[in-house]
Amino acid sequence: MNQTAIQDYYPDDYAHCHGCGRLNKTGTQLKSYWQGDCAIAHHKPNPAHTGGVPGFAYGGLIASLLDCHGTATAAAAAYAAENRSLDSAPFMRFVTGSLTVDYLKPTPLDTELEIKGTLVEIAGRKVTVVLTLSANGDVCAKGKMVAIRLQQ
Amino acid sequence: MNQTAIQDYYPDDYAHCHGCGRLNKTGTQLKSYWQGDCAIAHHKPNPAHTGGVPGFAYGGLIASLLDCHGTATAAAAAYAAENRSLDSAPFMRFVTGSLTVDYLKPTPLDTELEIKGTLVEIAGRKVTVVLTLSANGDVCAKGKMVAIRLQQ
Repeated sequence: MNQTAIQDYYPDDYAHCHGCGRLNKTGTQLKSYWQGDCAIAHHKPNPAHTGGVPGFAYGGLIASLLDCHGTATAAAAAYAAENRSLDSAPFMRFVTGSLTVDYLKPTPLDTELEIKGTLVEIAGRKVTVVLTLSANGDVCAKGKMVAIRLQQ
Repeated sequence: MNQTAIQDYYPDDYAHCHGCGRLNKTGTQLKSYWQGDCAIAHHKPNPAHTGGVPGFAYGGLIASLLDCHGTATAAAAAYAAENRSLDSAPFMRFVTGSLTVDYLKPTPLDTELEIKGTLVEIAGRKVTVVLTLSANGDVCAKGKMVAIRLQQ
């Protein structure tokens, strides 16, 4: 596994995201790692990020984790498709075009969550990925994202 | 316009959501108001909630706002369909089954955002709503949610 997070390759000008930017000091700083055929991130929720009923995550947290992990997966998959390392030029950064989240079951707050992203296809500047968010091996949410490569 | 927010009718046991619960002291406390045929909420973003590029909201914030506003819209529309006030029994509370967000353009952080939710249909325990998030009159994101009524 590459020990540098995908987000830590983002240039400073694109590294302020509240969800995953290393330069956002009060943010979540999600770290996603490319594993050759998928991207994996882990997150231990803040107990304050409860949903309506204490003990389970609010929907916005789940969407946020899938969103940041999805754009990171898209970036890593796009570099991999060109057989390029994440620090090679030209730089590629992705934003979300659309994100669908299916909430399958309540997501517990008291355990580490695993988010997995897998490439579906690359079509020009659009990269489609599918996502899962799991707790203790159970898939609690699924996602599908179309990410769009920013034009430099 | 009803001056009590939809979320402020949620019983205490369901009022802890980080996005919209009045009992979550560190949360966003989004307030959605039913206007007879749609629900409206306003939110002034925290500057820390930037996306990768400073000045614009991160995708997770937008998804969170649409998520909490969507379940509130579903609740208010379900009560309205039964010609009941939001404080009447039996209590109805909704969770998200699925949420799709289309990010149409960057959402500025330096202005108040307006979130609008409109009923599409009620089918048993499932309520479908469509959502928009606007800044300065421009629709920056669209959403579609299937919300599911909790069984008591």
